[in-house]
Amino acid sequence: MINYNPTDWFTFIFRIHRADTVKKLFPMFIAIALYSCVIAWLELTFIRAQAERDHLKNISAMHGLLGFVISMLLVFRTNTAYDRWWEGRRQWGGLVNSSRNLAMKLKAMLPTGHPAVAWFAHMIPNYAFALKDHLRGEFHPDKLENIAEDELERLGKGIHVPNRMATLIMEKINELHRQQVISGDQLITINAQLESFTDICGACERIKNTPIPFSYSVFLKKFIFFYVMTLPMGYVFGLGYLVVPMVVFIFYVLASLELIAEEIEDPFGKDANDLPTETISANIRRHVQEIMQ
Amino acid sequence: MINYNPTDWFTFIFRIHRADTVKKLFPMFIAIALYSCVIAWLELTFIRAQAERDHLKNISAMHGLLGFVISMLLVFRTNTAYDRWWEGRRQWGGLVNSSRNLAMKLKAMLPTGHPAVAWFAHMIPNYAFALKDHLRGEFHPDKLENIAEDELERLGKGIHVPNRMATLIMEKINELHRQQVISGDQLITINAQLESFTDICGACERIKNTPIPFSYSVFLKKFIFFYVMTLPMGYVFGLGYLVVPMVVFIFYVLASLELIAEEIEDPFGKDANDLPTETISANIRRHVQEIMQ
Amino acid sequence: MINYNPTDWFTFIFRIHRADTVKKLFPMFIAIALYSCVIAWLELTFIRAQAERDHLKNISAMHGLLGFVISMLLVFRTNTAYDRWWEGRRQWGGLVNSSRNLAMKLKAMLPTGHPAVAWFAHMIPNYAFALKDHLRGEFHPDKLENIAEDELERLGKGIHVPNRMATLIMEKINELHRQQVISGDQLITINAQLESFTDICGACERIKNTPIPFSYSVFLKKFIFFYVMTLPMGYVFGLGYLVVPMVVFIFYVLASLELIAEEIEDPFGKDANDLPTETISANIRRHVQEIMQ
Amino acid sequence: MINYNPTDWFTFIFRIHRADTVKKLFPMFIAIALYSCVIAWLELTFIRAQAERDHLKNISAMHGLLGFVISMLLVFRTNTAYDRWWEGRRQWGGLVNSSRNLAMKLKAMLPTGHPAVAWFAHMIPNYAFALKDHLRGEFHPDKLENIAEDELERLGKGIHVPNRMATLIMEKINELHRQQVISGDQLITINAQLESFTDICGACERIKNTPIPFSYSVFLKKFIFFYVMTLPMGYVFGLGYLVVPMVVFIFYVLASLELIAEEIEDPFGKDANDLPTETISANIRRHVQEIMQ
Amino acid sequence: MINYNPTDWFTFIFRIHRADTVKKLFPMFIAIALYSCVIAWLELTFIRAQAERDHLKNISAMHGLLGFVISMLLVFRTNTAYDRWWEGRRQWGGLVNSSRNLAMKLKAMLPTGHPAVAWFAHMIPNYAFALKDHLRGEFHPDKLENIAEDELERLGKGIHVPNRMATLIMEKINELHRQQVISGDQLITINAQLESFTDICGACERIKNTPIPFSYSVFLKKFIFFYVMTLPMGYVFGLGYLVVPMVVFIFYVLASLELIAEEIEDPFGKDANDLPTETISANIRRHVQEIMQ
Repeated sequence: MINYNPTDWFTFIFRIHRADTVKKLFPMFIAIALYSCVIAWLELTFIRAQAERDHLKNISAMHGLLGFVISMLLVFRTNTAYDRWWEGRRQWGGLVNSSRNLAMKLKAMLPTGHPAVAWFAHMIPNYAFALKDHLRGEFHPDKLENIAEDELERLGKGIHVPNRMATLIMEKINELHRQQVISGDQLITINAQLESFTDICGACERIKNTPIPFSYSVFLKKFIFFYVMTLPMGYVFGLGYLVVPMVVFIFYVLASLELIAEEIEDPFGKDANDLPTETISANIRRHVQEIMQ
Repeated sequence: MINYNPTDWFTFIFRIHRADTVKKLFPMFIAIALYSCVIAWLELTFIRAQAERDHLKNISAMHGLLGFVISMLLVFRTNTAYDRWWEGRRQWGGLVNSSRNLAMKLKAMLPTGHPAVAWFAHMIPNYAFALKDHLRGEFHPDKLENIAEDELERLGKGIHVPNRMATLIMEKINELHRQQVISGDQLITINAQLESFTDICGACERIKNTPIPFSYSVFLKKFIFFYVMTLPMGYVFGLGYLVVPMVVFIFYVLASLELIAEEIEDPFGKDANDLPTETISANIRRHVQEIMQ
Repeated sequence: MINYNPTDWFTFIFRIHRADTVKKLFPMFIAIALYSCVIAWLELTFIRAQAERDHLKNISAMHGLLGFVISMLLVFRTNTAYDRWWEGRRQWGGLVNSSRNLAMKLKAMLPTGHPAVAWFAHMIPNYAFALKDHLRGEFHPDKLENIAEDELERLGKGIHVPNRMATLIMEKINELHRQQVISGDQLITINAQLESFTDICGACERIKNTPIPFSYSVFLKKFIFFYVMTLPMGYVFGLGYLVVPMVVFIFYVLASLELIAEEIEDPFGKDANDLPTETISANIRRHVQEIMQ
Repeated sequence: MINYNPTDWFTFIFRIHRADTVKKLFPMFIAIALYSCVIAWLELTFIRAQAERDHLKNISAMHGLLGFVISMLLVFRTNTAYDRWWEGRRQWGGLVNSSRNLAMKLKAMLPTGHPAVAWFAHMIPNYAFALKDHLRGEFHPDKLENIAEDELERLGKGIHVPNRMATLIMEKINELHRQQVISGDQLITINAQLESFTDICGACERIKNTPIPFSYSVFLKKFIFFYVMTLPMGYVFGLGYLVVPMVVFIFYVLASLELIAEEIEDPFGKDANDLPTETISANIRRHVQEIMQ
Repeated sequence: MINYNPTDWFTFIFRIHRADTVKKLFPMFIAIALYSCVIAWLELTFIRAQAERDHLKNISAMHGLLGFVISMLLVFRTNTAYDRWWEGRRQWGGLVNSSRNLAMKLKAMLPTGHPAVAWFAHMIPNYAFALKDHLRGEFHPDKLENIAEDELERLGKGIHVPNRMATLIMEKINELHRQQVISGDQLITINAQLESFTDICGACERIKNTPIPFSYSVFLKKFIFFYVMTLPMGYVFGLGYLVVPMVVFIFYVLASLELIAEEIEDPFGKDANDLPTETISANIRRHVQEIMQ
């Protein structure tokens, strides 16, 4: 995610940022401009009969009628993509909350100086780092702090790392419960935080692995394509060669919406629009250790 | 569900996938093209008076006015269908989470080597497989692992298999509680997972058995039909025979939306757009057994 | 609710089902067709001056401008009505889940052969039947199974039957708790199911008793009425007598949406679009007794 | 709230109810009609040059373009206002549910004839009455039943009455717990109901005290005002004096939406569209006493 | 937040409030008016050929087509910004509820006169004040009441103050539990309130730190800019110099929506539209102390 001052309009308008759709769509702009030129030249040169010209001109009626549908579909697309992005953000916000609450409760429950305090102060943030990397298909054991040798061995390739770490935390809690360091009533009060780790992991995997249904994606791309390709045919006789920038601009608007939707739909990567899971994980480590020290 | 790279535009635009609405609607395209041709020929041949031509031409005003309504209804339809699909996905995501959390908690609670560990390692994933088949109206006992002979007998035809399996799990847990292997406080901490199985099953049945209200479905189909059938009448004098591809394209857009909505509304089947319940069940088995081994 | 195969298009388009808005609105269609004829005849016969004709013709600009608003209001209306219908469905889905979960838990908790098992196997489904009838303002004691004579007497007219039955279930559970058949920890684990019965009953009563705010309902009807009544005035000079079917069709679309919304807003009756609470209740009885036998 | 039969169309269309926006906006209708007349007379009399007439006529292009925005903003406004109204209704539905569930549980827990039964049978409904009056900025001690003299004294002016009553209920429950009439496990099972009273009170206060952000309210009013004021300028040359009823009708539609939104945004008063909190409170009293008798 | 009477229309329309977008956008209005004048003068003076004039005039077709998209995107923007603002309000409403419920429960649980009663009566409201300042990046120890010297020292710069205070509350509760002043069952009943403090803090931080995805913000600004800049080109020949106020008004509408969305997206500051966290905190202090006195 790019931290920006949302009120600084003019920089945005003229700067072409690396995540900007203008940059990504630029080759397409050229292609569509050329295509529109050719269509315009062909129609203006070869179609002379007024009746035929009128017929072609009225194609634009179709673009008017379908303008509603395409607009609303793109807003539907935008909405669903944004909802996933925002749900991803809420899940990571939930991880922050669970990590802090668990840290506070354990700090309050455990006797001062009990070795488990230090263990959890490292293990709770480690979960966030493991989840972040897991959602990117990576594993960086060097980002995990104070992890025992034998535990590290069991986190190798092919293992679901967040599951393994959540199991370690569960086992440690139950060990403390068996040793009567944590009473049964206290166990109940931390249960929600303990299960939230795996719930959050599952929710993020769900968002990551489930794009919008295949049919919608295909349909929307076909629709945008034929809509834009037929645009110059109808508008040439009204606009002359001005049809070229107009078609490019309309394509820019429609394709940008689809492109941004595709980009933010999977919000756990390293793209410019993705969630700052790196920073959130670091904050979890800082705050949990501040709480438990 | 088809796994696809959502950014690979051009393949999508020109390839006709088996789930593509273009394929399904092709016979309709032919019929509507013929119908439009006939209407166009009739109007262009027999209607000569300018006043009558103008009157017919102005029918298109109706299509303009109703263009908003039909667009918004189709987006409403798309939204509700997508919401069911996504709720179905969330329910199966919830099943993944509950299975993992229950496995972790039982692994932590039960003494190492207790026979119940192995029993749950098979039974929790079996529930997912049973639910998947139940939602398709099928029953495949061979997909269930390590199930006792007497238990299998009680899962025959006519029995609600997921209910039966959830009952078995509940009874096993209460047996362990009576034997004091699981304390009362521990029972409370796994209660949410235990009841979630049946809640998820009920929610999936609800999605499966409740299509959009009958009146909406009928109304929307009638509306699309009459809207498309009257389209060529109004646009013939403006577009000539170009009215044929235009009507086909508008029909393609409107009918595709209704068709996709119908397809994804029941997301538990084996269609191209359905949820990958097969894969999710296999993942539950793999992860639960990894956790409990 | 009518069970239909949602993909069978053509039957829907030409069959006039008893719940079809075409049937209900038919007398209105005649009235509006006559009205439009009269308006058309008056305008075409008596208004001769070109300036006046132009002025009347431009009334259609108003219909264009307000076309957005009326479309969006109808979609808003459709959305809120559908949301209630779907919330009603979710509540009854919740009743299915609670009934099953409570049955499973009691089956697992209670000693085999304890008389309370049979009592609950009848009483849990009875709640569903009582609720279904309560939401229709009826009471059918013959649909309740195995209910004691003295209990039945206390369910007479004027009594809130679902409340009375939920109280009976609560009292039975607490009696078993006092007899130590159900421990305190077990009481906590079935608490959510026990209170869900009354929560579901309250939510259904809320949906049933709260139509959309009066002002919206009145405003929307006035708006549709004046919109449709002024339609022929503006379009006569463009369409001639073709204005008659056009006005009828636009009225059909707008009024159908309002009509369907009114119908599905209270989903607990016996209309064609209402929820199948009868079937759901029967399924609860079948499944609960299958679980507890 | 007005109880009405939502299908009785024609009464609604021609009757002017006291809550009808037609009544409230009537003086504005006159003002806007006069204003439009003056604009129409001025333009038709003094603007003679065809070029100027054409320029003025094309102002209507702006109304077309902005027609989408204003429609969607009004629907956004309608949605947010309706959501608050419906959330208010759900909160009061929640109060009904919590009151009933708490009554049932206490009835089942407390020994028959214990004096606390009668105390709660009065106190739970009293909470609903106190909350209803609190949300209207009133306090009617005479509506509270069987309240002790010393308790009543502590509910005077300046005191947050629902908070005070919730505290009384909490204290009574804890007293019963200290006397071992209610066990610790039973305390846990009624906890959700006990805290829901204050949660509902807080949610209702939030709805009541938080109108839509100031900027939106101001912007929307300015937008509607300038939109309607410039309408006659553009349409005079197309419509002649017919512009007067058209502008009035468009103003009626836009202003009604804003007006209804303002009215239902705070749903706890005594307006025609407000929630029937009086009736709901009376029902809570009737049902709670039926349960606990 | 500005407390206003939402029905007082005319004051709103003509008064320019300091938070009004008219004020903020005024320099832009001048610039855009000048730009439109120049474009109008250039086109009217130098473009004489009818064909070229017609081509330029038809640019407005593009504005019509894209009018849907830009309207819907702005409503999408408005919706997401409003949702954050309202979620922020709900979180603070949740803080009010948790503070009150915790105060009531502790008042009922703790023996009369126990020193912890006074401690919590100050500490619970202090949390609200600390959170309010934390969300503004400030720290005002003088607003915290009756805080011990040694506790205050640990709340210095660099420390996450709300976390520190929540930890203090957790530790105090656990200390009371160890001293058997609060039983295990009572601990469970206040657990939800205790963890809600940190959940609310995390949710507010999430709203504050996550603006709408960068790509949308950039795209929307570019879109509005090019849409408005090309407006005068197309409308000059239809409107003459009237194009100047029209372009300014359209810019006012579009830019206001984006501007208000940016303003309310972070609702915890001191802007005119921000949430009244100051007042809410003061109310929490007043009500908690009223409850616990």
